[in-house]
Amino acid sequence: MNVNKQHYRTIWINPDDKKSIQIIDQRKLPFSFEIETIKNVEEMAIAIKDMHLRGAGLIGVAGAYGMYLAVIEAKNESDFLAAIEKSAQLLKATRPTAVNLSWAVDLMLQEIRIIADLENEAKIDFAEQISEAIANQDAESCRMIGEHGLYLIREISKKKKGKTVNILTHCNAGWLAFVDYGSATAPMYAAQNEGIDIHVWVDETRPRNQGARLTAWELKQQGIQHTVIPDNTGGLLMQKGMVDLVIVGSDRTTRNGDVANKIGTYLKALAAKDNQIPFYVALPSSSIDWEMENGLLEIPIEERNSREISHIEGLYKDKLVEIMITPEESVGSNFGFDITPARLVTGLITERGICDANADSLLNLFPEHDSES
Amino acid sequence: MNVNKQHYRTIWINPDDKKSIQIIDQRKLPFSFEIETIKNVEEMAIAIKDMHLRGAGLIGVAGAYGMYLAVIEAKNESDFLAAIEKSAQLLKATRPTAVNLSWAVDLMLQEIRIIADLENEAKIDFAEQISEAIANQDAESCRMIGEHGLYLIREISKKKKGKTVNILTHCNAGWLAFVDYGSATAPMYAAQNEGIDIHVWVDETRPRNQGARLTAWELKQQGIQHTVIPDNTGGLLMQKGMVDLVIVGSDRTTRNGDVANKIGTYLKALAAKDNQIPFYVALPSSSIDWEMENGLLEIPIEERNSREISHIEGLYKDKLVEIMITPEESVGSNFGFDITPARLVTGLITERGICDANADSLLNLFPEHDSES
Repeated sequence: MNVNKQHYRTIWINPDDKKSIQIIDQRKLPFSFEIETIKNVEEMAIAIKDMHLRGAGLIGVAGAYGMYLAVIEAKNESDFLAAIEKSAQLLKATRPTAVNLSWAVDLMLQEIRIIADLENEAKIDFAEQISEAIANQDAESCRMIGEHGLYLIREISKKKKGKTVNILTHCNAGWLAFVDYGSATAPMYAAQNEGIDIHVWVDETRPRNQGARLTAWELKQQGIQHTVIPDNTGGLLMQKGMVDLVIVGSDRTTRNGDVANKIGTYLKALAAKDNQIPFYVALPSSSIDWEMENGLLEIPIEERNSREISHIEGLYKDKLVEIMITPEESVGSNFGFDITPARLVTGLITERGICDANADSLLNLFPEHDSES
Repeated sequence: MNVNKQHYRTIWINPDDKKSIQIIDQRKLPFSFEIETIKNVEEMAIAIKDMHLRGAGLIGVAGAYGMYLAVIEAKNESDFLAAIEKSAQLLKATRPTAVNLSWAVDLMLQEIRIIADLENEAKIDFAEQISEAIANQDAESCRMIGEHGLYLIREISKKKKGKTVNILTHCNAGWLAFVDYGSATAPMYAAQNEGIDIHVWVDETRPRNQGARLTAWELKQQGIQHTVIPDNTGGLLMQKGMVDLVIVGSDRTTRNGDVANKIGTYLKALAAKDNQIPFYVALPSSSIDWEMENGLLEIPIEERNSREISHIEGLYKDKLVEIMITPEESVGSNFGFDITPARLVTGLITERGICDANADSLLNLFPEHDSES
């Protein structure tokens, strides 16, 4: 998508030094746009863990590029595969809830094992190609999610006779969370492309404010009408008929259609159900965990540092500073995700089409996963 | 309740100059404890509108004391009653959603009309006595809410064989929102008094963070275990069995039991229902609007300045500063309240006892309002 009218992905191989990776440092957004160069596996692990980059798809692609860096680093090690496996462990341990990360790292590991005995140059070339393919697949999946999701927005626009379609989203499942297009945002960008009049309610998404900082920023860069609201506001907007459609992303979806997404998603799903508003989850199939059935019992919920609750960052006199917003001793509990049970999900928007949130419908689109459970 | 182990109310007549009122300036909490002296009606209107004080009960009492100041100011006016009525209008216009404010101001107005022809000294004495009575009634109502609500906590504690009872609350319906004790917090303070082991999940309550700033502070002053959480977190805690009871306050309750309370309350009520967790609303009957039936259709929802969303205040290098937390142009919609329909409310805790959220049960406790509808 565009930044200052120029096309960017969120992560790419450095064109000036192919042994390093470049990313948009999302910690500085929306206040400044900075590109960070990552030179080794350890730096990539830090970038993922400390959220220089974040988001279901992007974390996976970062893991893949991290494994490409691992091959470069390990090329002269006596036990090449042991070194590679150590890097894989390091990368996978950074964020426990997102399934794309272990999916991408394990895929790289599997491919690298096959070519472990090749010459150094060939190994590196191969790892580069596989990681690029994973990145391209992420972008293409998101583009297709946009095409399928567009149908939902177009139908609502027709029903409203061209009046503005109001879409609510939570957190950032935008292009900043993937390589390009995004998952929840892809249908919005597709609708804009078709000239449909849309407006997006952006949940600010405490405690890290990915909505206020990232989603608002990328919608603005793309010229889409939007309004940032506190996470508390969506329920009232739905009660008042001011929301036509909810689209959120997913960090992990079980084969039965339970959705782990940013904490607070479940509350919006309840409100949508209570007000008969369609609630859709947009996700590339790489974030489906085909081995899990019950999201609430099986998906591990990441707990993050409570400083994210007691402190918040923003602009003060044109400088990015962090301020304290709770009494010092009232330490917060900081769970990163909650589970939206499949019964609250109107449908899943995947790269292969829209389906109901249950195993039969999912397997109808993805029959190759029928045996995994 | 206590501040630094000394007893305070939230508002009182200045003992050193009975022509002025003193309040705790809640804008500075929890970072500094400051007392503000209010010398006339206009200053009181500003204090209410700009939220030097806030909260259902306290706004009402501030309105009453404001009318006491109005009598002092108007005592030599040629048209005393016209001046008094102008002050009443000024005070009532400051916050549209809370019903206590117009209730208390109208009550004062009605009483003042009766004694308009008395000598100046007698008028002032009388206005002082009525405003003091309104303040005392607020404190006594809250104390009684505590006694009745204690029963709920005691029963859960027995069922859990003395293990910690986890209570979730939203916003500040604490003693800072009233004259003393609070509404939602009164049962907690009563439980603490009885030696019951409790822990309170405190929703931070964006955008003004009354939970993180006020509820956390007053629970800490009182020595009650608590944890500040983002507004997004309560749903997951309920899903995980980490909440035994929800108690919130109410800014306005209809005769059918619909509850207008701080924006976001509705979302917690939905989650409580979905997880079979009791959801109680604690309120003095002064906040019941006996003339309204359908909360969603009839209660006006206050819209506040969007700067409360784009900016946030906190401590930076020991100084209270305001920082910007959204992109400049992504202006926010800032509705102050939402409506929790009676069907989601397990019960109402009033000063006369606990009842179901419907007109029959409410009128059973308050039969004197049977004719108002």
